[in-house]
Formats: sequence, C-alpha cells, structure tokens
Amino acid sequence: MSATEFKPLLPVKQPVPSDIDIAQSVEPIHIAKIAEAVGLLPEEYELYGTHKAKVKLSVRDRLAGAPDGKYVVVAGITPTPLGEGKSTTTIGLCQAMGAYLKKKVLTCVRQPSQGPTFGIKGGAAGGGYSQVIPMEEMNLHLTGDIHAITAANNLLAAAIDVRMFHEANQTDEQLFNRLCPADKQGKRKFAPVMLRRLAKLGINKTDPEELTPEERREFARLDIDPASITWRRVIDTNDRFLRSLTVGQGPEEKGAVRSTGFDITVSSEIMAVLALATDLADMRERLGRMVVGNDTKGRPVTADDLGVGGALTVLMKDAILPTLMQTLEQTPVLVHAGPFANIAHGNSSVVADQIGLKLVGEDGFVVTEAGFGADIGMEKFMNIKCRASGLTPDCVVLVATVRALKMHGGGPPVVAGTPLHHDYTTENVALVSAGCCNLVRHIENARKYGVPVVVAINRFACDTDAELQAVKEAALAAGASDAVICAHHGLGGAGAVGLGEAVVRACSGPKPEFKFLYDVNLSIKEKIEIIAKEMYHAAGVEYKPEAEAQIEKYTRMGFDKLPICMAKTQYSFSHDASLKGAPSGFVLPIRDVRASVGAGFLYPLVGNMMTMPGLPTRPCFYDIDLDPATGKVVGLS
Amino acid sequence: MSATEFKPLLPVKQPVPSDIDIAQSVEPIHIAKIAEAVGLLPEEYELYGTHKAKVKLSVRDRLAGAPDGKYVVVAGITPTPLGEGKSTTTIGLCQAMGAYLKKKVLTCVRQPSQGPTFGIKGGAAGGGYSQVIPMEEMNLHLTGDIHAITAANNLLAAAIDVRMFHEANQTDEQLFNRLCPADKQGKRKFAPVMLRRLAKLGINKTDPEELTPEERREFARLDIDPASITWRRVIDTNDRFLRSLTVGQGPEEKGAVRSTGFDITVSSEIMAVLALATDLADMRERLGRMVVGNDTKGRPVTADDLGVGGALTVLMKDAILPTLMQTLEQTPVLVHAGPFANIAHGNSSVVADQIGLKLVGEDGFVVTEAGFGADIGMEKFMNIKCRASGLTPDCVVLVATVRALKMHGGGPPVVAGTPLHHDYTTENVALVSAGCCNLVRHIENARKYGVPVVVAINRFACDTDAELQAVKEAALAAGASDAVICAHHGLGGAGAVGLGEAVVRACSGPKPEFKFLYDVNLSIKEKIEIIAKEMYHAAGVEYKPEAEAQIEKYTRMGFDKLPICMAKTQYSFSHDASLKGAPSGFVLPIRDVRASVGAGFLYPLVGNMMTMPGLPTRPCFYDIDLDPATGKVVGLS
Repeated sequence: MSATEFKPLLPVKQPVPSDIDIAQSVEPIHIAKIAEAVGLLPEEYELYGTHKAKVKLSVRDRLAGAPDGKYVVVAGITPTPLGEGKSTTTIGLCQAMGAYLKKKVLTCVRQPSQGPTFGIKGGAAGGGYSQVIPMEEMNLHLTGDIHAITAANNLLAAAIDVRMFHEANQTDEQLFNRLCPADKQGKRKFAPVMLRRLAKLGINKTDPEELTPEERREFARLDIDPASITWRRVIDTNDRFLRSLTVGQGPEEKGAVRSTGFDITVSSEIMAVLALATDLADMRERLGRMVVGNDTKGRPVTADDLGVGGALTVLMKDAILPTLMQTLEQTPVLVHAGPFANIAHGNSSVVADQIGLKLVGEDGFVVTEAGFGADIGMEKFMNIKCRASGLTPDCVVLVATVRALKMHGGGPPVVAGTPLHHDYTTENVALVSAGCCNLVRHIENARKYGVPVVVAINRFACDTDAELQAVKEAALAAGASDAVICAHHGLGGAGAVGLGEAVVRACSGPKPEFKFLYDVNLSIKEKIEIIAKEMYHAAGVEYKPEAEAQIEKYTRMGFDKLPICMAKTQYSFSHDASLKGAPSGFVLPIRDVRASVGAGFLYPLVGNMMTMPGLPTRPCFYDIDLDPATGKVVGLS
Repeated sequence: MSATEFKPLLPVKQPVPSDIDIAQSVEPIHIAKIAEAVGLLPEEYELYGTHKAKVKLSVRDRLAGAPDGKYVVVAGITPTPLGEGKSTTTIGLCQAMGAYLKKKVLTCVRQPSQGPTFGIKGGAAGGGYSQVIPMEEMNLHLTGDIHAITAANNLLAAAIDVRMFHEANQTDEQLFNRLCPADKQGKRKFAPVMLRRLAKLGINKTDPEELTPEERREFARLDIDPASITWRRVIDTNDRFLRSLTVGQGPEEKGAVRSTGFDITVSSEIMAVLALATDLADMRERLGRMVVGNDTKGRPVTADDLGVGGALTVLMKDAILPTLMQTLEQTPVLVHAGPFANIAHGNSSVVADQIGLKLVGEDGFVVTEAGFGADIGMEKFMNIKCRASGLTPDCVVLVATVRALKMHGGGPPVVAGTPLHHDYTTENVALVSAGCCNLVRHIENARKYGVPVVVAINRFACDTDAELQAVKEAALAAGASDAVICAHHGLGGAGAVGLGEAVVRACSGPKPEFKFLYDVNLSIKEKIEIIAKEMYHAAGVEYKPEAEAQIEKYTRMGFDKLPICMAKTQYSFSHDASLKGAPSGFVLPIRDVRASVGAGFLYPLVGNMMTMPGLPTRPCFYDIDLDPATGKVVGLS
C-alpha cells in the first residue's frame, strides 16, 4: 500500500509552510489528555503548563511486571550537511503508527540545545507536518533540564578551581580544620560524602580526631595536577569566544590563572550521565564518580573527592524525569536528554525508553532516534545505550535520501547556505545507484547486531520515481527487510503509513537475537579496533603518542573495561569527512583518548571535535521576536 | 495584645529545628488550592508541578477596574553580616495576617540566586517557622526564570564579541550582503529589528537596495569600541575564577582576545529589567534599548542594534510570569525577580506587586520586601520601583534587632562564621540604646516619603525584655506609628500577630501623600547629592575623574533623566562599612557611574561592588545530597 493512498488528517498545504507556521496552526491538546491516553495515572506526572508534563519514574515501577513493547531505533545513512530528516522521519513514523494505524506508539527524542536555535540551524522538533509541538517550547527552555546541567557542570568546575586555590593558600592543618570544623560542642564530624573519599583512600575511620597528620593531609589535599584537568565549563549559547580563555585573572585570585574553556552544555558529561542513568540512585553514583583530572601522583580525582556529588544530584533531581509532549497528530512524545553524538553517545535517555516500553505494552511500539549517521549513532545505541538499559531493539529504521546518496555516488559537495548543484535537483539514477554503497554498508552494519532493518526513503520534492526505485532495490538487495518511500514532511503521518506497516511487519517475528559488537572486557585497543574494522572498514588503527599515553593511564586507573564512544565525524565512515560512499582500507588515526567515567565510556578522538559552535554574521536571532499582541513567538525556524 | 498570647497553628518545637527540617515537616497543599483561595481563575495560571504555578498577567487585566489592596514594604535597619531576618519577618508577618488575623494577604519576595545556596549562605526562603515552601524548590531552579536570564544575558554577550569579529574580518559590502541576503527571488529584506536601527540612524528607507554605500556602511558596521563594553557574561554559580578572564584565545578567533568577566546572574541588567517591566511589550522595549557600550564615535550601541532584542524577549517570555507558592501556614506568595541591591535596585517585580494588589482587593494587603538596609533597598523601592509601577506604599515595616543595634552602639564587630562576642549574648541596655541612632535615622528617612512606619523588633533568644523595651521606646520617640516585638522565627505567624495588627492600624487611615525624594529631571549630580545628603547625611559628594567623564557622557547621550541607583555598601549609611550607627559629615566618593538603560537607571559606584561571590574551603554543598530512598533533599540550610 502506498503512503499517498492515505488522506492526511492534517490540513496540509502546498508548498509546505514554515515549521513554525505549521506548528502554530495546530492547537495542541492539554497534555493531561495525552498522559491519560498513554496510560499514565494522574499522580505519575507533573504538569509544566498545559503542553508539557514531567513523567515520574514511579510508573516504571508500577508496570515492572508488564511486558515491554517493540523497540524501534531510527538511524541514518551518512548525511549531507543539510540533514536527511531523521528526526522528521522518527516523528512522522510515529504519527503514522499512532494516528493512522491505531497502534500504541511513543516517540523518544532528544532535547535540542538552545544555542543553535539562535545561530544557524534553527529548531530541532522535526519539520513540516511531522513535528513535536509546541515547537517553540521544545526548542527553548522546555522543562529546564539543560539549564540544570549547566548549573551542575559549572558548580563542579567552580569547585575544582576554588579547591586548588584554597589548597595553595592553606597549610594541611588549616585545610583539615576548615573541611571538618568543630561544632559548638567542639566536636568534629565528616560529611557523608567525605566518607566516600576516606574509603577510597583506604582510611577506615569515621571520627576526624582519629586521623593521623598524614591521613589528614591525604584526606584534605586533593593535589590536583592542573595540567590534567579535563573538566571544562559549559553554557547553552553559541559563544565561540569562550572556546579558549584564561581564568583567574582577578587580583583576589593571586595569580592562579589557568587556561581552559567553555563547551556547549549538551556536550557536558552530565548530559551523558542523564541519558544513561537508570534511576536517581544510579545517577547519584555516576555523578559522584565523574573524573575531573588526576592528582600529582596520577590518581583520578572525582566529583565526590571534591564533596559535590550530592549537590550535583540535587541540581539534577527533576532533570531525570522525561518530558511528555505531543506530535502534530496528538501522538505522545517523551523528550529527554540530548548528549553530543561525537564526544558522547548521541542518544536520548534510557529512562524515557524504559518508561515508554512499559506504557505502550506488548502490542505497542517505542520509536527512538540515534543521532548522527548510523556508524556513530546506531553503533553507540547498540553498544553503549543498550548495555546501560538492558534493552535490545526489535528493528532498525534507516533513513536514506536520494540527495545524500547522490553525494555518495560522486555528486559535488553539498554546502549549507549555498544553492544545490543541479545534479541534486534533476534526475540522475546512475548517480543515486553509485551512492547506494553507503546505504548498503549501513544495512550490513545494522544486520551485524542481529536486528532487522527497514529503510525509510525520505522523499524530497525533486526526487523522481526512478531514483527512489533504485534506492529501494538496492536496500532490499542488501538485506533490508523492507524499504519504503515516504512523504511525512509534506503529509504528516499519512505520508509514512507504508513505513509504519513495514515496521510493524519487521517487529512481528520473534525477538531478534541481539549481539553486541564487542565484549567490554577486551582491552581498549581491541575494542577500538573492532569498531574501526567492523563498522568503518578501516584497515587498521594508528595511535598518536597522546592516545597511547592516555590508554596506558586509563588502563592503569582501571577504566579499561568501559565501552568505547568514538568521537568521529559523521560525514564519512572514515575520519576524513571528504571520503564519501563506502570507503575502506584507510588507517584510522586516534589523536587522543578521554574518559567519561560517570557516563561510563571512553572516547577516542578521531580528529578535532567542535564542542562550541559559533554565530554567523546574521544569526537566526535577527528574525526571532515576540508578537506583543498575541504573545506568540515569530521567526523561529 | 502580645504575640505570645496566640497559640501557634504549627507544631512548633524548641529549640527551633533546621530550616529544611521544618520546611519538610509541613506538607504543602496543592498550589491550585492556593490559587483558588487567592482568587485566580483556572485559566489564569499554569501549574509547574503541584507546588508552583506561574501566574498570567491577564489576571491584572481582568481586575483592572477593581481597587488595589494596601501596599506594605518591609525594609531593615543597617544590618550585621548575619542578617536581621528581613525575609523571615516579611513571611512571618504575612502568616500572621493571613492565618491568624484572617486578612487577605499576599507576600511578594525575590527569587534567591542558586549560587549562594551551594556556597556560604544557604537558602533564602525565610527561616524557622516563617518560610516559603517547598524551600528546596524556592532555592533551586524554581520555574527557571534565573536560567532564562542567564541564557538571554549570554546570548547578547556572544552577539557582541562575534559581531566585532565579523566586522573585523569583512568588508562593508560583505557585511551588508550577509546581514541582508538576497532570497531565492533575488530580493533583499530588512528584518523588523533592523528597521529600529535604521530609524535610530535617521535612515528612512525600508528597501535594502535603496541604501547608499555610506548608509550601508553606517547600518552594517556597529563599530563598537571594545574598551567601552560594559556588558559582561553571567552564570548562576559562585565561581570567583570567572571574575576576570581573557576570552577569544582559540586559534579560530584570530587573536581577537578581550579582557572581560562573568558576574552572578542576578546581577544582570536583564534581572533588573524583569523586575521593572510592566508587561511583555514594555519588556521588549527595555531589552532592546539596553546599552552594551558605545561605538568609536561615542554613540550608544544597544541590543537592538545587534539584532537580538526580540530573541532576548522570547527567552524571557515565561520569566515575566510570577511564581505562586505558599508559606508554612498556607498563605500565598509570589516569588518573582531578584535583582542585586547594589548595582541594581534590589526589589522583587513590579508585575507581582501589581497582580497581588488586585488579587487581595480593597481590604487586603500586599507585603513586599526591599533588599539591603533601608538606605539602599527602601530608597530604591520608593524612587525607582514606585516610579516604574505607579504604585505607592501605605506603610513601611522596618525590621530591627537588638544584635544590630548593639553593633551600632559600639559593640565589637560581628563576623560571619565566628562566635558572637558576649556583649551580644548578655544584657546590655546601654549598648542597645546607644545604637538606636541607626534605627532613628531609618525611621526619619522613611517618614520623608510621607509614609507611616511600623518597627518590627525581631526578637532573638538572648534578647532581654529591657533591651527590647529600649528599642521600642526609641522607635516610638522617633516617629514610628508603632513598634512591635515579634517572635515569628520560633512561632510562625503566631509570633507576629501583634505586628500584623500594627500594620493593619497603620494602613487604616487615608492613603498617605507619597513624595518622591527627587525629581528625575534634575541633573545626575543633583540627584546623587539629594540622596547622599537626605538619606545618608553626607556633607557632600566627591566625583573621581572616571565618574565625571561618565556623567558627562551619559548626559550627552540623553540618559541623564533616569533615576539613580546607588551602588553602596549596606553596612553603613556612609561608603565606609566600618562607620556604624548614624554617621554624618562624611564626603561620599563616587568612583564611577554606569548605566542600565533598559532597566532605566544610572548606578554610581560608591566603592567596589562584588558581583561574583566565591566558594569557601568547605562550601555548603558538602552537606547537600538526595536521599535515594525518598528522593528528598538533605543538608540544605
């Protein structure tokens, strides 16, 4: 059955209006109605206005004994810089399954960073007639989770610099006395978080008075090696001038200057922790064990060593609750977490997926999106997120476009902000077919996890039937269980009904026998090499001296059993963004290796990763304003 | 009638437990019940969970024709560094008026900064049995207003640096073409915000093609003088290492380094704008006209010149709605805005007070707090806030303590974190009486506005009846309409019933004939001198060369008709914090003068103002954690 046989429920227009015009043309229903429809009890969510609600983790406990729904992950082929509509497809697919096929379905998506909303990119709530609404709330503060991360990240950063400062200006005894001051009765006491540090140091005493002078020194002096500090400050604004700066230049800081910088908030390890934590207690432990650097003896220094793990958890206590919203066709959406897809794993939260699977139940579907191309986003979904959650997918949806495949077939570069070459706007089946090698490899990669693959061919206006057919044939030949042309951007769910049906079929068999790509107990290098060879088709891996040193250090520290989170471009299977199609035989260079111990992964750096975007000469913000008469946002794209 | 004759409704304990233990021992009722009791219609507020709600400005429109309630402002004598319980008295007074005297009452308080919650000070939701609950929500993210300010402030900061960067690296024509790019039809268009800049430049054209090359240059090149930039970045964390730093040190920024710094978010001009704006349209205009520095020709450069005024408003659109909460005795509270009391005016929002006065109606009371000592907070309330709101107070409540008056009488210094000298813990009536000169002057100052004064003597455990009586007598002799000893910290509203009765009596006469202290149309120096002489009893004012230059500059720019917001210590009437009591005859030095043009005031700097607190060796955060079993916050003080 073809998607176009369905009559759209939405009042669709041609040409498709702007995202915000569409979003504001549909009145969202009260979120309590969405909550009720999805099976939440009134005490299981908290309203944030009338269109957002935070869902409590208690619903997962209530439904613990119930069977999970089907778990569908949406990934994409290697994209052009314009994006291939992965989020839009995720949402369109769910609108189709929910509003047309009448399945219980729940969409899990990431919360977009606010920074790019005012920069180049605009919003990230889907597009056209497949959107999460109200899109301005999705793209702005939402329910404050990213702001909570900023606050937590920067409290830890402040704690680091100020601790080094106080240690530099106080004797061991002064430090100890200030950390454990005598109360009015002259009694000293350790704060509970201090007992964590004592345990780590092997000091088995609970009365401060009993510590020897050496133990007092050991306890009180973290002795952080400034050169080892990997913890940076964050801000949810595209502010390139903060990328690299020198702090501590005030007279009161007595010359304790240090070079550091700010990243965009979503790149904070705390965002990755939020996405991977399974409950409050787990989040508390993860936040406490985040490593900020090492001491002068080479031992890791953690947030709990600084005494701040509990405070970070308090700042994050509401952020762990996913936010319920709705699509343009009133299907439920959980928006939660949005870690970077390079230095982090690029997937929305474990708790949202877990809650969703219980809510939709045995016959329902949770559709979750993996950021970046599938070599990055899907690989990390499988090996990092599924390891943390204990869940495994029933189906992979792989989003492909004729445009991107033409690029992979040898088409001229696609550059944001400049007009497309006519190769992309006129029929060229040979170019498409030549580029299908990229799609084929992503299908083969996905199949290595033992999971069926449905290819979603996201149709653009200038695509021809012959081009689309070529993609479909290539996909089926490569082992996709189905390949469906869809048009949800212009039609909403009506444009993705065929895709929805294909997903239902792909999930109808027995639970796939899921296979991880690697055993976490392998060495760091073995794990990196498996990913490089199996997913990227690299001939080998080359380690720069910094990377070798870090691998040695993390192995010594006992962090070598963590899964690997490759920080690589999404614009090629290789490290070189200009190598399109399905390159192989290259040697993957590992420049450095970093650790997110709280999130629970190591991230090898394959090239330079941008962790703070900038603003162009004419940022989006020029168009954004509030209509004072209606209070509505205008100009958001 | 004495306060102690009332039986507390709260299960009070002796000794008074910690603030968080008291706060968590009382179960807050659903905020919808508070909203209903206060007269809000269901469509006039939005729930944020079950204990907070954002109140829409539409309620003010609905009740526009109704009479206002009585307007009570709480101020304090010159305090010790330990604080004299001004917030606690504000809340205790309202608990008394609402829960015991059965008056319609609404408390308007500032939202505390999150930074100090993790530093030295702990929370700021009142104390003892007079608190706003849930206190952890009040002290943490609340409904995200401060986070919105951080985002808006820093978007503007990023816009400044990146604009200077793009101007430095592009020709006039490149700049113009990027600011007004041709669309697909080859047509150029000005964004609406650009028309504001054109109007300011006197260019009366709406088609970009019609601009001459000179006009294009004039339009596109802001030519900001880097040395003139007064706009700094902000963060709601006590991070002293950000006070002074150098940005732009990354290779991509091509050497465009600049010295600047971060302040704590609540010191942002945007916080002052939020507190003074009367509606969305007013806020839009204020945000757009904020001045960030001047161009090389000495003309002010605004947020709208940078094209970002609309985007700032969009970021702040929910922040303009006050947050409804409750006290321990279920009286309603509006928490809204919390500008610094030195470089800004230190008062909660105009809109919250306006809404409150309509909601309580003719026989009701709005009690609002003015930050810092009354020479600062009350003076600014009268001359800045009342000018913006059009409201005038019916009564001033002046909070005094025996402890602070002993200090003013010549007692030894009171230092936070060190035990009190025994002069403060044993009876010494002569010392108290000697210090009453401070209280007397504050009473006389308040009377200059034509408003009756009620003195609230906030009783501490070690105060004796004779000491308290001495304060009462001095207050009455100085012209206070009443002076009441109260004990709301230990008893809740029951401890402030006498104070509540005194306030009702003071407000029972005809509306006071309110007088501003100065005419805004006077020159900058004339206004400064009136405040210095009338409020501080200075003999004169001395201007440093920087101050003279700024006064000349702001006068030339046309900003001289703004009211004055003195940035002075609250620890003395003078500029010297060590001059206690009621000093006079000193010469007030004005180091510099700055402008908050959007907020709408000039702020002369009398000494150095701290705009970014630090963290001690053992910050509060050591004790703060989440109980994973209950999800409750522990250790917040």
